[in-house]
Amino acid sequence: MISVEEARTRILAQVKPVGAELVALSQGLGRVLAAPVIARLNQPPADISAMDGYALRAVDAAPGARLKLIGEAPAGQPFAGHVGVRETVRVFTGGVVPDGADAVILQENVEADTGFVQPRDGAETGQNIRRKGQDFAAGSALLSRGRRCDSRALALAGAANYPWLSVHRRPRVAILSTGDEISLPGDPLAPGGIISSNGALLAGFVAAHGGEPLLLPIARDDISAIANASDAAQGADLLLTTGGASVGEHDLLQAGLKERGFALDFWKVAMRPGKPLIFGRVGALPVLGLPGNPVAAYVCAVLFLAPLLAVLAGRGAAAGLPVFDAVMLGAALKQNDQREDFLRASLVRGEEGEVVVPYERQDSGQLQALTQADALIRRPPFAPALVPGKVVQIIRLRNL
Amino acid sequence: MISVEEARTRILAQVKPVGAELVALSQGLGRVLAAPVIARLNQPPADISAMDGYALRAVDAAPGARLKLIGEAPAGQPFAGHVGVRETVRVFTGGVVPDGADAVILQENVEADTGFVQPRDGAETGQNIRRKGQDFAAGSALLSRGRRCDSRALALAGAANYPWLSVHRRPRVAILSTGDEISLPGDPLAPGGIISSNGALLAGFVAAHGGEPLLLPIARDDISAIANASDAAQGADLLLTTGGASVGEHDLLQAGLKERGFALDFWKVAMRPGKPLIFGRVGALPVLGLPGNPVAAYVCAVLFLAPLLAVLAGRGAAAGLPVFDAVMLGAALKQNDQREDFLRASLVRGEEGEVVVPYERQDSGQLQALTQADALIRRPPFAPALVPGKVVQIIRLRNL
Repeated sequence: MISVEEARTRILAQVKPVGAELVALSQGLGRVLAAPVIARLNQPPADISAMDGYALRAVDAAPGARLKLIGEAPAGQPFAGHVGVRETVRVFTGGVVPDGADAVILQENVEADTGFVQPRDGAETGQNIRRKGQDFAAGSALLSRGRRCDSRALALAGAANYPWLSVHRRPRVAILSTGDEISLPGDPLAPGGIISSNGALLAGFVAAHGGEPLLLPIARDDISAIANASDAAQGADLLLTTGGASVGEHDLLQAGLKERGFALDFWKVAMRPGKPLIFGRVGALPVLGLPGNPVAAYVCAVLFLAPLLAVLAGRGAAAGLPVFDAVMLGAALKQNDQREDFLRASLVRGEEGEVVVPYERQDSGQLQALTQADALIRRPPFAPALVPGKVVQIIRLRNL
Repeated sequence: MISVEEARTRILAQVKPVGAELVALSQGLGRVLAAPVIARLNQPPADISAMDGYALRAVDAAPGARLKLIGEAPAGQPFAGHVGVRETVRVFTGGVVPDGADAVILQENVEADTGFVQPRDGAETGQNIRRKGQDFAAGSALLSRGRRCDSRALALAGAANYPWLSVHRRPRVAILSTGDEISLPGDPLAPGGIISSNGALLAGFVAAHGGEPLLLPIARDDISAIANASDAAQGADLLLTTGGASVGEHDLLQAGLKERGFALDFWKVAMRPGKPLIFGRVGALPVLGLPGNPVAAYVCAVLFLAPLLAVLAGRGAAAGLPVFDAVMLGAALKQNDQREDFLRASLVRGEEGEVVVPYERQDSGQLQALTQADALIRRPPFAPALVPGKVVQIIRLRNL
């Protein structure tokens, strides 16, 4: 058995980002930039007014001064002339500040006569003007390669005049569930059979982390069925299997993959749940073998699949690593053995702040409890017994 | 001007959840349940073995006892007979515990002879057995209406034998950008014109919050163009406008909507940025008018659009309300005036923990700065000046 840390390091050393494609800006949400966004123009494109008011030479503004109104400059309709001595032009928010003017006074701060305007105050050079390129200058780097686009990034790319974006394509992840006992939801169920939930779990997890899930048909417990499934996964960026990773006689996953030259990297990790994790390759195709138990599969997905997908997707491993927060414990914990534990837990807000309470039952067959859990408590190998009030490390599950 | 709180209350009072549709389980990620998920079967469906081992009567297990091996029960292939006195059946993880047996001993804890098995230890009734219905019983409520489905919820619905889900359809949000000066990215740009970024911003925001964005063509500054755009939005659940909400002569949004019977609820909110927010209805269609400035539009989206979409999407307003965290201030702040401020800021991790540092420039024209911001600092109306080290309320932007 190797440690969680070593397992993750070995997995991440074997994968690299997938290639790029162009997508329309409107399709860019959640996509990862494969090239930086460099401004294609200045923003603002010229000196523009930040307010509705009057553009003038700052030196002409003084209480009682009388300026001649020589035109107007709404947004999108620049004034073509020049603002000279004791002249002014009506401007609107977003309108170009006319040539010759170097300040804008607010409309509420003038007396407007027919054809003339009288400022109530002086003005400072540049006031109420957004300078050309003040937000960004043409040629400047606005968004870095590897950024996952949220709505703000899409707005900035749009403002920089990008109708489309170069993004990493979504990593293709083939998902293989194995087992004689499992059926898809709604399909006929054999006596003693159970409904497969890992397909839905992992497809959802992959999609939520920017990948494209490809659900392979369930493979029966049969060497050639598994070997054939691995053929079907060729062209994917990752083969994700579930089940068949334990020690029983009917666990044929490795035997099936070996028919296609499976090179094992490691098998078994010192963790609970999730011990029977497998990693290796069939040719160029990385294979991550998750336990069949959905709770164990999910914990392994959080710890290993999320950073793996972050690498494939071009975000870099750090974006997918679990984030640990220190939170006060609300119940006692026993001493831990040599395996790193990940306990399902609730977060509650008490008088002394946030408290994490591990579920009494940590049976990894409890899928319902998993869907209600707020967090996983991490217990390092050989962690000492803890009383309530001590601080533990948790991973929040809300956003996974 | 009304307060942020009052504006939000008035908006949320006017909207309700959209209707339901059925989607395949594989399409359920991020969708909001319109009906609870009630278990259609027991999980596990029968008493099953949690381990690879031997099923027997607990009373028969003792060091040196010799049990007759009468069959095997792999997952999915139950043993049809009955386990009698001093008999045992080979079982595998997930296999049904045969009739008559009430315990499973691990395979590593027996001596296996041909046809016989000798336990090394005693056994307790129920050990290594997952009871029928232990995870969930048929008929029990597993997932509530209003839950947004993550990968865990999809797995649980799958395990409960749901091939499809009843979910709220995605709220349809028509987005209208207005202004003579704006062009779409890549389109020809008039002199003094700027690229529209609000369409990309709001479409991304709507999609990230579970809505379906519909980008209307840009409307020129013309009453009938705006009136026609409001016709085109009929059938949407919300019309979101941007621009034309300020006080200048060229702000024709309200005039255009009034051509179609616009009923104004409120205009202007005591906040910065975002003061010229408008809310009302054209017939049954709610209209939320955001400022044209993208930074102000984004802040208004965080404060008002997110909870509005959460209501439409069936999640309930609480799921979309901004979450405030208390964080230590890393720079001085001046006293605030009567408007509630939302300052763009960075989060940095120092020796004393997390610190929030407001940007020096709070110009709402700074779209680039917005895309780099980690948080908004909330400054209540008339908040006193603060020195570094004081605690302020922030909204984290990472997940919006």
